[in-house]
Amino acid sequence: MGEAITYELLHVDKNSGARRGVIHTPHGDVQTPIFMPVGTQATVKAMTPEELKEMVEAQIILGNTYHLFLRPGHKIVEKAGGLHKFMNWDRPILTDSGGFQVFSLGKLRTITEEGVEFRSYIDGSKNYLSPEKSIEVQQSLGSDIMMAFDECCPYPSTYDYTKKSMERTTRWAKRCKEAWTNKETQGLFGIIQGGFYKDLRDISLEQLIALDFPGYAIGGISVGEPKETFLDILQYTTPKMPENKPRYLMGVGTPDYLIEAALAGIDMCDCVLPTRIARHGTAMTHNGKLVVRNATYAEDFTPLDPECDCYTCKNYTRAYIRHLLNVNEILGMRLLSIHNLRFLTKLMDRVRIEIENDNLLNFRDEFYKKYGYEK
Amino acid sequence: MGEAITYELLHVDKNSGARRGVIHTPHGDVQTPIFMPVGTQATVKAMTPEELKEMVEAQIILGNTYHLFLRPGHKIVEKAGGLHKFMNWDRPILTDSGGFQVFSLGKLRTITEEGVEFRSYIDGSKNYLSPEKSIEVQQSLGSDIMMAFDECCPYPSTYDYTKKSMERTTRWAKRCKEAWTNKETQGLFGIIQGGFYKDLRDISLEQLIALDFPGYAIGGISVGEPKETFLDILQYTTPKMPENKPRYLMGVGTPDYLIEAALAGIDMCDCVLPTRIARHGTAMTHNGKLVVRNATYAEDFTPLDPECDCYTCKNYTRAYIRHLLNVNEILGMRLLSIHNLRFLTKLMDRVRIEIENDNLLNFRDEFYKKYGYEK
Repeated sequence: MGEAITYELLHVDKNSGARRGVIHTPHGDVQTPIFMPVGTQATVKAMTPEELKEMVEAQIILGNTYHLFLRPGHKIVEKAGGLHKFMNWDRPILTDSGGFQVFSLGKLRTITEEGVEFRSYIDGSKNYLSPEKSIEVQQSLGSDIMMAFDECCPYPSTYDYTKKSMERTTRWAKRCKEAWTNKETQGLFGIIQGGFYKDLRDISLEQLIALDFPGYAIGGISVGEPKETFLDILQYTTPKMPENKPRYLMGVGTPDYLIEAALAGIDMCDCVLPTRIARHGTAMTHNGKLVVRNATYAEDFTPLDPECDCYTCKNYTRAYIRHLLNVNEILGMRLLSIHNLRFLTKLMDRVRIEIENDNLLNFRDEFYKKYGYEK
Repeated sequence: MGEAITYELLHVDKNSGARRGVIHTPHGDVQTPIFMPVGTQATVKAMTPEELKEMVEAQIILGNTYHLFLRPGHKIVEKAGGLHKFMNWDRPILTDSGGFQVFSLGKLRTITEEGVEFRSYIDGSKNYLSPEKSIEVQQSLGSDIMMAFDECCPYPSTYDYTKKSMERTTRWAKRCKEAWTNKETQGLFGIIQGGFYKDLRDISLEQLIALDFPGYAIGGISVGEPKETFLDILQYTTPKMPENKPRYLMGVGTPDYLIEAALAGIDMCDCVLPTRIARHGTAMTHNGKLVVRNATYAEDFTPLDPECDCYTCKNYTRAYIRHLLNVNEILGMRLLSIHNLRFLTKLMDRVRIEIENDNLLNFRDEFYKKYGYEK
């Protein structure tokens, strides 16, 4: 029997490192490069699965090990028949390992070589995640792609701290691989760490590639550093990742970062940004960010983004959406979530076409101009 | 040119006062008896228009003059092309007059013969509603059915207070009728008051019928009184309402009250109850109320209501919905809102069939038994 996750390279942009490919998963194919909406707690916030398929055209979504471990508990999801069945989503799911979330807990957690003990933010109860436990949880969830339990350094971190953390990430990656039993139904990706130190990135790459995971992610960038620092590490690391396996950049969701990731040769990105800013009243548009909550739009009877053909833009005005947000109506958050997610999936549709035409660099420049980004 | 609102009587149940009819409106026909979902702030909470049509099969919804007058302001809705266009709903809309809401403000409002001065609950600003102003606002909104600006007595109220209030309601109804100019595009219903005093109900009926409105509502019951008191006034008042016009019972939305209203000869009811309890985690089912938020349902992988065929019951389990509510996910409120609204519209589909078969009384008895109500 074959591996759960395989990658097929279709085309490389002649003028950049951008790759057009397909990831084959047990729940269907994913055309790459791709943006993946985040469904932290077994739901992409405010959305139904049908909306994700029909309005957003999402090919794959994320679930969150840390959150689902605490609530409802992975055993309940397992009893339900796995995360796909529990949440009524039949396309691929990627689960993160919970590492990023437990490390973000600060004083509420204690890290040892064995794993991380932490207090639940819900009821203060003591909990424990380790490489083995994370894989156990992710196997209960039954995601198509599991992530290795890693340690993500904050920005900035010293060389010594970053090195120790990267080395531990490698040791934990090995333990994750050993704990992984569902090889034919679930893939497992290693996460390259090493912060903003290129020699540490090299060591991490070498050690993790030696472990031969079905796919690799870059962790520990897009964590608050300046854009040039981000690009430097992205462009340094990505080309060194295996060509025959999916390359995933974690936590990226702004239009410019998504395009830069694709240019560098990344296949997959995810971020809570589009749905989070939606719930707070901001739309992504072809002319930049639009804070539709602002009073300016009270009598603006045009769509959020005149160039967009999403459900929201076809049927509702800025004035209406602004009113809904202003009076805290759920529909306002729904309409903006649909729009922002569709904006990004459509952007990636375009990115894939531009790669096929060896034109992603030119497209980036035009898009930056229009969207008002500095390169 | 004809009147905006007309009523066609199709059949009267031989064993009760229940009527099967059709209300013709500028935005289409409404099969009665009907339950109308409430869209207070230009949205039925958590729902899109398509969901209301396709999942709930709602024929008509409500809008709220008081809320829309304050936010976004009726002039903005008018500029948008009216409430239908503003909220993207092309079926009939009924707007209440704002009377019930301003009277509920207690100390924040002052009633005079001229109208009601009140403080906005949003910013404390002074505002004013009167019969003329309420009609002006409702004409800006462009609803198919407007309601006269009335005074709704709290329960209990003294005979004297109720009498004075009822008499003022009549004078205000007359002023509303005089202010009403869009006769061919919008109907206007009078509201029968008189509290729990039958002789006052008789006077209110007589005076309002003399004003010849296109439809009539019963106000001031289902305001906290015991069920037998409710039924007493309902069954006393309804048969005295004009036979050739729609009869609307305001603020009723529990299954038993809806059936009792239909039995008495009521055509239309509305209530925020199904969507409100949905957002707090309670489902209406064929076996009574189900507080799905409870821990009992953590591992219950059956639908909310096994007899229901709604989107929610076809696709999701109690365990999943319970999880969503437990972690405050919008989708949980959405799924319960869809279910509860569909539960009531489907109940009314059934009520209409039972009337056609002269069987509503028997159905009521069976339903009460199953649902666990006392008659």
